[in-house]
Amino acid sequence: MTVQMDLKRIIINEVHDHQMVMLRETEGDRSFPIVIGIFEATSIDRRVRGLPSPRPLTHDLIVNVVDQMGGELQDIYISELREHTYYAKLRIRKDGELVEIDCRPSDAIAVAVTAKVPIYVAEDVIVEASGEQQ
Amino acid sequence: MTVQMDLKRIIINEVHDHQMVMLRETEGDRSFPIVIGIFEATSIDRRVRGLPSPRPLTHDLIVNVVDQMGGELQDIYISELREHTYYAKLRIRKDGELVEIDCRPSDAIAVAVTAKVPIYVAEDVIVEASGEQQ
Repeated sequence: MTVQMDLKRIIINEVHDHQMVMLRETEGDRSFPIVIGIFEATSIDRRVRGLPSPRPLTHDLIVNVVDQMGGELQDIYISELREHTYYAKLRIRKDGELVEIDCRPSDAIAVAVTAKVPIYVAEDVIVEASGEQQ
Repeated sequence: MTVQMDLKRIIINEVHDHQMVMLRETEGDRSFPIVIGIFEATSIDRRVRGLPSPRPLTHDLIVNVVDQMGGELQDIYISELREHTYYAKLRIRKDGELVEIDCRPSDAIAVAVTAKVPIYVAEDVIVEASGEQQ
């Protein structure tokens, strides 16, 4: 089972390299944090704030590659939590098929925010992530 | 006219945010620097040193997207220097056609180093870049 979630908050702390994004259920109250790097955090933050960039930044480039290769980004999916590490996929429609490409959740979320596609999370991941917070 | 160049040096200075890569002609002596951000510099540096990463990093993801969308990265091309800003493209073969995707040179070089494809630069850019250094 998968659950749609929204990017709820980005917490940037310039003192150390571990930043955080908080995901929250679109239709519910459960939420959990993912620790990400400063580059990904600022990249996500730029996009959420709609800051313009004169040239395509790295995550724009990913979205452009999908597009110009004839794919259509469907959503991103955080599929697994294993030993405190989250695993994610870009899910792309191409020629009627679904292509899944492994990536880190930070890249996936940056891509989702750039391309304005939904973020899905496996139910198991939400349960485990909630457990880890306690 | 295009000229093949190699990544000659990466100069990382953690005190400020402007790092530098130096490109040099594969069959010649001309070279020029490109100023890039710290994220791109460390990403390039990791790859040149062959440091392993347990999960696909952002530029691995770009290469994987090209691959899984059925494209073949041919080379990267630094096509233009305009008002002190370099412009680049990923050049991808797909279904017998050449697809060019605009990007920043720092992303292009990180992709080239990841996918082990050549770096080409427009002759005009080399001439102008050499002029700017004087």
